[in-house]
Amino acid sequence: MRRAIALATENARSGGRGPFAALVVREGKVIAEGANLVTSANDPTAHAEITAIRRACAALKHFQLRGCEIYCSAEPCPMCLAAIYWSRAERIYFGASRHDAAAIGFDDVRIYREVAQPVERRELPTQQLLRQEALESFREWENNPDKIRY
Amino acid sequence: MRRAIALATENARSGGRGPFAALVVREGKVIAEGANLVTSANDPTAHAEITAIRRACAALKHFQLRGCEIYCSAEPCPMCLAAIYWSRAERIYFGASRHDAAAIGFDDVRIYREVAQPVERRELPTQQLLRQEALESFREWENNPDKIRY
Repeated sequence: MRRAIALATENARSGGRGPFAALVVREGKVIAEGANLVTSANDPTAHAEITAIRRACAALKHFQLRGCEIYCSAEPCPMCLAAIYWSRAERIYFGASRHDAAAIGFDDVRIYREVAQPVERRELPTQQLLRQEALESFREWENNPDKIRY
Repeated sequence: MRRAIALATENARSGGRGPFAALVVREGKVIAEGANLVTSANDPTAHAEITAIRRACAALKHFQLRGCEIYCSAEPCPMCLAAIYWSRAERIYFGASRHDAAAIGFDDVRIYREVAQPVERRELPTQQLLRQEALESFREWENNPDKIRY
């Protein structure tokens, strides 16, 4: 965790990037590190955890991180938390909380609230269209004997 | 939306990749397309929406998508929904629902439920550590006059 915090501090110091970093660890060994690169990489998805997960999967040449733990200098936002679920990593440690992040101007608390709302009550206008046609894609996948579940 | 669905179907057909695609549109023009590449790219974050957002931001050379709409062949999972919030896109259209995705074996409904839970009630063990030290990173960022808010 101290390594994640040190990386986050370094990231905030150089270039004014987001003060966040994350490490993926397996059996006590760091597999990948990531820092927040949103503004420097022009990528709103380049949070520390996403960056670390992508690098860890590239290192392991697999799309899952079973047996891994993730150390985050701050509580993962809903994007990163869901990414950790999809990665199948098995434990999360975090330092600062979502409320600490809100106190310095980050939207984590608001986005947690929005994600938990039913679609029709969100601030972001959202509309369902052409469901029946969309289900055709799902049938295609179900019928494909080569599909890889994740 | 029909283009997103066609792309999703094509993605599911070739290589058995996830049956999902997304488009970023601005002023009626498609800026970027993305399909689910999780298993083919060994990247659990490579959902269609994340792929499309990253490509759209690369095309616009900016870390935000203000004025853009996102068309998703299926309801965004919490990772993708939060990514859309972070991107500042302004409207979402989707085809199949999270329940349709659950019916063919995807974890969207479960992850929505988990993200909405307080940390201590989640299935994924999560622990806070060294908060006071972590706040040092936040102070570094707050004190950096060159910081770029996002």
